Amino acid sequence: MMDIVTELTPIFYPGSIAVIGATNAESSWGKYRLQALIDMGFPKLYPVNPEGSEVLGLQGYSSVKQIPEDVDLALVSVPRSAVPSVVRECTEKGVKGVSIFTAGYSEAGPEGKAFEEEIVGIARTGITRLIGPSSAGIYNPSAKVTAHPDSPKESGCLALISHSGYLTDDFVRTAAARGMACSKVVSCGNECDLTAVDFLEYLGEDSETKIIAAYLEGMKDGRRFFRLARTLSPRKPIVLWKGGVSQEGARYAISHTGALAGASRVWDAVCSQTGIVRVDSFEQLMDVLVALYRLPLAEGRRIGVICSPGGFAVATCDACVALGLTMAQFSEYTRERLAKVMLPPVGTIPGNPVGLSPVSAFIPGVYRNTYETVLQDENIDMFLVALCTVEVEDDSTLAMLGELLTPMAARKPVVVATTAPEDITLPQYRWLAEKGIPVYRDPRAAAIALAKLAEYSDFVRSCGEPVNG
Amino acid sequence: MMDIVTELTPIFYPGSIAVIGATNAESSWGKYRLQALIDMGFPKLYPVNPEGSEVLGLQGYSSVKQIPEDVDLALVSVPRSAVPSVVRECTEKGVKGVSIFTAGYSEAGPEGKAFEEEIVGIARTGITRLIGPSSAGIYNPSAKVTAHPDSPKESGCLALISHSGYLTDDFVRTAAARGMACSKVVSCGNECDLTAVDFLEYLGEDSETKIIAAYLEGMKDGRRFFRLARTLSPRKPIVLWKGGVSQEGARYAISHTGALAGASRVWDAVCSQTGIVRVDSFEQLMDVLVALYRLPLAEGRRIGVICSPGGFAVATCDACVALGLTMAQFSEYTRERLAKVMLPPVGTIPGNPVGLSPVSAFIPGVYRNTYETVLQDENIDMFLVALCTVEVEDDSTLAMLGELLTPMAARKPVVVATTAPEDITLPQYRWLAEKGIPVYRDPRAAAIALAKLAEYSDFVRSCGEPVNG
Repeated sequence: MMDIVTELTPIFYPGSIAVIGATNAESSWGKYRLQALIDMGFPKLYPVNPEGSEVLGLQGYSSVKQIPEDVDLALVSVPRSAVPSVVRECTEKGVKGVSIFTAGYSEAGPEGKAFEEEIVGIARTGITRLIGPSSAGIYNPSAKVTAHPDSPKESGCLALISHSGYLTDDFVRTAAARGMACSKVVSCGNECDLTAVDFLEYLGEDSETKIIAAYLEGMKDGRRFFRLARTLSPRKPIVLWKGGVSQEGARYAISHTGALAGASRVWDAVCSQTGIVRVDSFEQLMDVLVALYRLPLAEGRRIGVICSPGGFAVATCDACVALGLTMAQFSEYTRERLAKVMLPPVGTIPGNPVGLSPVSAFIPGVYRNTYETVLQDENIDMFLVALCTVEVEDDSTLAMLGELLTPMAARKPVVVATTAPEDITLPQYRWLAEKGIPVYRDPRAAAIALAKLAEYSDFVRSCGEPVNG
Repeated sequence: MMDIVTELTPIFYPGSIAVIGATNAESSWGKYRLQALIDMGFPKLYPVNPEGSEVLGLQGYSSVKQIPEDVDLALVSVPRSAVPSVVRECTEKGVKGVSIFTAGYSEAGPEGKAFEEEIVGIARTGITRLIGPSSAGIYNPSAKVTAHPDSPKESGCLALISHSGYLTDDFVRTAAARGMACSKVVSCGNECDLTAVDFLEYLGEDSETKIIAAYLEGMKDGRRFFRLARTLSPRKPIVLWKGGVSQEGARYAISHTGALAGASRVWDAVCSQTGIVRVDSFEQLMDVLVALYRLPLAEGRRIGVICSPGGFAVATCDACVALGLTMAQFSEYTRERLAKVMLPPVGTIPGNPVGLSPVSAFIPGVYRNTYETVLQDENIDMFLVALCTVEVEDDSTLAMLGELLTPMAARKPVVVATTAPEDITLPQYRWLAEKGIPVYRDPRAAAIALAKLAEYSDFVRSCGEPVNG
């Protein structure tokens, strides 16, 4: 048996793709996938349909075996009853990977399960590996491979392994909206052949991938997953959103009834022993990934907070403490200097949180001196800056913040949170994100991301690995 | 002593406003407030500064006593040392309310406390009531009163009482971005005279106000607050975000050291006994308010979920169950009909959550019939629809959703959640919000809002009040 990297490389980096089931019907998923690949710029595409019709201007074939060249990857969107013969033809053709979108297999009861066993049996007669069924396929922008229209073309270091197909598109787009680009995304589907653990192993070796996100419901091979995660996570963080933690949720999960499926506390134990960072919603997943994507690890949990004085200082402080962060004790130098530089505008409070009145941005020196003073303090491991609408909307304040925070964000975690409404401030959010500063829509969401970053940093240290080495 | 409504009405609905401390300096808070009032269209404005200079084209006066007409409200942004003489002049002039922006009072130690006692003593020699100090003033769009530039002009039914001044502007703007308009917003500041409880009493009687939000740190008169909240909340929901729940947060709070300050579990007890809905972050505050603003109360906790099949169904189910909602058991009629109308596209799952493939929107009837079937089921108390990017971006799908969900949202709680990135979908969010459907950026956030709505509905029922009567 070949090793997983050798097997999966031509699937993630195919030289040619057959889109089987691409017809000219309005509701054709195959045509939808074909259009997505054309938009992405993938060069060698072969639509396959019973009539061998041309689709979207590309020559069609009535069978994958009619295609005059080698095919590395086949995307299959045909009715369930037609899947076995399609898999047989692909296997006979020597196609490396077959990604099956068609649903209605083991998740649909015993009859579906038998179908799965049938297609796996067929594939095993050759070198063909199967993804799915009920998979939304793979995305690899550096190979121009995608399953969804309008996919971002830029490639980055973020990977996703997902038991949910629909999640993959939203994940890629939301990542892009938050300034992150992906290396590889894979929708595992029912894992009749290739499993989430196979993909984890592949991504562990993939040089493009630096961070691995996972939405998992069950687990086919818990022991192998555990060993692999334990080995990988000190050098590539793994962020897990576990679906099916409630009985009702598990019942709806396409349950694979592996050893680890279901019990949330088992997963808690797995995560703490392997260093996996666990999150409990889509937005928390994205929030934590932004921090890991942009920021260095944290040397400790001592946080310095700068925000407008009053309520947000109090609430941000509450959130940090509740999440296990420690309000940093500023050095004597910092305290003395803050008392001096912050004096002019009444309403500023030189403690931690540093209460900095937004109007002080208009008094030369105060705003800049305050930031410079806090940022130089070596008693602080990470920084949270909470801005209100007035500050976010003022271009010169924002430019100053970018200039002050960007160099620090290369050395210590720095995040910005704001309570300003997103429709007003999205351009500003994006501007800061492009400067390397993660932006959160709420101070508490920012504190959660920093606390998870600190948790992962602790794990890396506990493995004897150099933090930010 | 007059009753609070008689006293506060001319302050919230002033015939004229003096802006004391409005100068022509760049960093003048007074000028900032004056500009905000001009933008709002408030007619009778009098800038006051030592030179009696004209500001922003308005005739200036050197003292409030020089103003030739009665003054109902004075906004004060002068250095702390000048505040007592300003309050004295306002009191002698018979100004009804003086809102003091200047900070540096009791929150700044014993010296500041003495200052507060001094100005209260002066005000008590006349009819003048004080708001603050360290207050960001009041906002009442129906009287064209505001403290911040670019405030929305539309008035609505949402009120805020806030111990944080900076919160008030972000609150008003975020509310507007989410389709809500405010009746009254007040920043209490240090409450040297008028307190949060006074404002609560006033808002309880205010016919414009239907929902009261509160960001509170301490509480000067806990017993009166408790009695008032208990009386009000069955007819006007009160949503509380309590700041200063951590020791560190409490230390930074402008602590009023009242009986209820600090201990979070005391506040939990107060909330459960009074029906106050408690939230723990700014975004949760806004999420819950949107539900209360738009939706009827819930008859029970049985939720029906419609979303794309697979991961989001599982995760949404997990979130609902974890938050104390119950996955509704559909009626036999619903189950039979769903099995029929959903049959065509493989990949749909006719349980609860109803897994509805987005591609089925393109197959005539399936999408519409599925929604109509689920919405008619009387075994469901509330609905959560989770959409993925494909659905949100398609105009005809969105139009169909608006048409199907809007009538139901007048009868039972209906919310939409999406994991599509906000920068792509803000226009669609707004369109749905305008149709009366609250939109959440994450299924879990939507489930939290529905769970809080159910909690409040239970409280109203427990008071023997008719729900949605």
